[in-house]
Amino acid sequence: MEIDFQTEPQRYKHWHLRLDGQVAHLILDVDEHGGLFDGYQLKLNSYDLGVDIELHDAIQRLRFEHPEVSIVLLESAKRAVFCAGANIRMLAGASHAHKVNFCKFTNETRNAIEDASTWSEMTFISVIQGTCAGGGYELVLATDYILMADDGSSSIALPEVPLLAVLPGTGGLTRITDKRKVRRDIADVFSTLEEGVRGPKAVTWGLIDRTVPPSELAGEIDQFIDQLDDQSDTTVNRKGILLKPLERNYSDSTMNYSTVRVDKNRVGRTATLTISGPQSPVPQNCDALSASGSAAWALRCARELDDALLHLRFNEPDLGVLIFRTEGDCATVLQHDAFLNQHAEHWLVREIMLYWKRVLKRIDLTSRSLVTLIDPGSCFVGLLAEIMFACDRTYMLIGQLDQNPWPAPVVTLTTSNFRSYPMSNDLTRLETRFIGQPNVVKKLFDLIGDTLPAQTCLDLGLITFAFDELDWEDEIRIFLEERAAFSPDALIGLEANLRFPGPETMETKIFGRLSAWQNWIFQRDNATGAQGALPRYGSGQKGIFDPERV
Amino acid sequence: MEIDFQTEPQRYKHWHLRLDGQVAHLILDVDEHGGLFDGYQLKLNSYDLGVDIELHDAIQRLRFEHPEVSIVLLESAKRAVFCAGANIRMLAGASHAHKVNFCKFTNETRNAIEDASTWSEMTFISVIQGTCAGGGYELVLATDYILMADDGSSSIALPEVPLLAVLPGTGGLTRITDKRKVRRDIADVFSTLEEGVRGPKAVTWGLIDRTVPPSELAGEIDQFIDQLDDQSDTTVNRKGILLKPLERNYSDSTMNYSTVRVDKNRVGRTATLTISGPQSPVPQNCDALSASGSAAWALRCARELDDALLHLRFNEPDLGVLIFRTEGDCATVLQHDAFLNQHAEHWLVREIMLYWKRVLKRIDLTSRSLVTLIDPGSCFVGLLAEIMFACDRTYMLIGQLDQNPWPAPVVTLTTSNFRSYPMSNDLTRLETRFIGQPNVVKKLFDLIGDTLPAQTCLDLGLITFAFDELDWEDEIRIFLEERAAFSPDALIGLEANLRFPGPETMETKIFGRLSAWQNWIFQRDNATGAQGALPRYGSGQKGIFDPERV
Repeated sequence: MEIDFQTEPQRYKHWHLRLDGQVAHLILDVDEHGGLFDGYQLKLNSYDLGVDIELHDAIQRLRFEHPEVSIVLLESAKRAVFCAGANIRMLAGASHAHKVNFCKFTNETRNAIEDASTWSEMTFISVIQGTCAGGGYELVLATDYILMADDGSSSIALPEVPLLAVLPGTGGLTRITDKRKVRRDIADVFSTLEEGVRGPKAVTWGLIDRTVPPSELAGEIDQFIDQLDDQSDTTVNRKGILLKPLERNYSDSTMNYSTVRVDKNRVGRTATLTISGPQSPVPQNCDALSASGSAAWALRCARELDDALLHLRFNEPDLGVLIFRTEGDCATVLQHDAFLNQHAEHWLVREIMLYWKRVLKRIDLTSRSLVTLIDPGSCFVGLLAEIMFACDRTYMLIGQLDQNPWPAPVVTLTTSNFRSYPMSNDLTRLETRFIGQPNVVKKLFDLIGDTLPAQTCLDLGLITFAFDELDWEDEIRIFLEERAAFSPDALIGLEANLRFPGPETMETKIFGRLSAWQNWIFQRDNATGAQGALPRYGSGQKGIFDPERV
Repeated sequence: MEIDFQTEPQRYKHWHLRLDGQVAHLILDVDEHGGLFDGYQLKLNSYDLGVDIELHDAIQRLRFEHPEVSIVLLESAKRAVFCAGANIRMLAGASHAHKVNFCKFTNETRNAIEDASTWSEMTFISVIQGTCAGGGYELVLATDYILMADDGSSSIALPEVPLLAVLPGTGGLTRITDKRKVRRDIADVFSTLEEGVRGPKAVTWGLIDRTVPPSELAGEIDQFIDQLDDQSDTTVNRKGILLKPLERNYSDSTMNYSTVRVDKNRVGRTATLTISGPQSPVPQNCDALSASGSAAWALRCARELDDALLHLRFNEPDLGVLIFRTEGDCATVLQHDAFLNQHAEHWLVREIMLYWKRVLKRIDLTSRSLVTLIDPGSCFVGLLAEIMFACDRTYMLIGQLDQNPWPAPVVTLTTSNFRSYPMSNDLTRLETRFIGQPNVVKKLFDLIGDTLPAQTCLDLGLITFAFDELDWEDEIRIFLEERAAFSPDALIGLEANLRFPGPETMETKIFGRLSAWQNWIFQRDNATGAQGALPRYGSGQKGIFDPERV
């Protein structure tokens, strides 16, 4: 079964998105029988990837379709349970690869919530009534304010270690210490307490912000709305745009979007993503941009690229190398790129840029070998040049190709490469590339707008290799064959380390430290072996553990 | 077979330590037939844990026995090979737990080299002639200056990914990007190049510092010695102290040192480490300290605790909880602690404190559940209180125990807890404990010297739990039983994450991000399965890989 990441509120099975002026209610109401795969029921508001795909869609639509919203209330439609976290039978039945990719996507969606909090003038408030456990509490941790009913039964818990022999691995351990500053020994106690804690203790320990009797919940939320009303005059008059369904056309070996084409080579185990620059002129102003809605090139391209990446991650695990190419007119890309930077204060431009930031981060975090090929007809300019800086390697042709009318390829830097699209480590890709060498970055800044041919790019360290026509095809073929011959696991580890030199942030710690440990645990018999805790969950038998410490 | 970490230069099989005034030659000359286990030969200066134990010992002795040394030359006695890295047959035959622990110890020893560079006025220079691959180059990366013969055959390589389907996981990937600032795409090329690179290219890529013809190597080294002579007047007249053999007395269930006692409980799967405070008065001055040599309490205790920790890590993998206790007179500990801080500028005091820093880091990085019990007769004061802050949890008795003459336990903070013994993340343990709350740390600073009873410690957040006699034994029993029932793997992941909230450094990235990925890869069939690259190495057959990307 192919997993599809496109949906829309009318088709949601598990969430209700209710709009009420500046307030949005995002209500979890999981359909037990609506699991993405067979073999499990999504009881107790537990989730699988299908639930998370809808959440991802809802967050996107809130930002683009409902920019007037400034408060998002995260709630549950079920009475006794807020959310039981990731469905355990689903986890027990899933392949290692699916578990890892599922966790990564879930993490990315939670980061998108925090991104909206930080940059999109939205405040996310969790309103917990009933039990909220595991991934349920980890989701709540991504919100700005956590309110819980003090009713003697509502509770939060991270029972993964005691119950399932795995970690609260979708951000939980990192967010309690690094975001909520819970003391590490308290965090240890909480994360080993199967039954979790209720209101007052959860406040004392710093795990939630406030607890009130159920009768006072509504009043507490109203206070928030009253406070925020004063600050949100700017948002109230914004008119959102509709995110129309993507135009896609799939065959067995290709995926065609309006601005992205994916060519799959199953023998060579590669996928080539060719991104087309804009065909249309730059919008005259922000009103024109709004009028074009989701047809605007910059937004369309981000959505299509995002969808293609997610498709490849989940549906094409054997295509180990992603090859990025561009096609288009550099001058037009430059105009669209400049338009974005020039109007960065306009809410829609801001959202388009923030979306590109998230898509580029998604590339950084994709566990495939990433390579950019810069050949005639390409348009690696500004925003699109960020793709090459996200890749593990970049090959650029020196000069033209015989029998090809296009001029020799060039690269052009813009302010987009120095500020607009930071990585998860909070550095730009150029700062990351030249870690510890701020002077190099400064020197590159002075070259903004220049057309840089291959040899110059090589000298400046912007690309890895430059070859002329004589060697071009051979060198690339050798690289691709070599990459296909290496162990995919070793490459994953190599790339995950080399892509993030220098400082770490909460986000990089979640994807590096926490996820790497979780992936290790997912491979261990104590968790996933025949007698491990995951397959035995619910069987009445506890997992049998090898006591050896590693 | 029990692994013993004690050795001395006369017993080295694999290293020569040659002293020549201020210059020490540390020469790798591995005895092929001197492997720690059967089943492999240590060809081509490849190493196993036994080789690394000697290196660890040599670095320790250089610091304490030869403080006059200011240049350490890392060399090979073999002509065509500098070092081939970790022995592959050893790795292929080793258990997962041994591999992981071996890598951790190797990393700690390399960090100790950098610690000596930074704090002990020693400069480490690698002089590479012949091939230097994998762990060999990773060792070299820990030195300050890398010199390589430009002879057409000397080379450096990280061939782990292409050859063995594992990572350059003992610091390699992290040090090339974070220490040597090698560009990430160049690092990708280098780390997938089985044959590595020779002198000039290695310099261009930033992987080594300099390459000269073999005939000029000696002159190049002499230049270094000449330069450093001018700066090292202070070190030349220092008289080292002898690190005498530890007094140890092992039985099946106990390990008795002069200041540390380990009681093993194999049924409950715990080991209790009881550390005795000093019996002797504080040295009158630094000369008296030097005269007492390795018998001085602070040094003796550090060495014994270090040996006990390493013993437990490698020889007692099933003892999943380490319980730390102290016994002694608080006032005397306070005097010894004050002596160290007061004379921190004296080289021997500095070395003792740096050693404690490393031992405390070794505790932080030990993958067992760590708990401190503070009961009557204990002396958690200053330096020794760092142990409690290294633990996952701390339990403290309120008041006295019936039938026990000792007064109610107290804790006393000193400047030791605010400066002297930073963790791998470059923060003190209190800064880590109260991450993001500098005011709390400031408030604690004002309490230096106070005797803090259990309730006060609890209120200040210095301990996790305080119980009176009525609950004390039950609560601890329940905790230990609970911990023994959890999956050891899940606990390892939990603890590895919670112990390092906040910022990361190169060291924490090596132990967190890099090691966690390597551990994952060590569990994967592509590396260690029957058809994986490690077991097949040298068989003439390549590993067969599942192409799936995870």
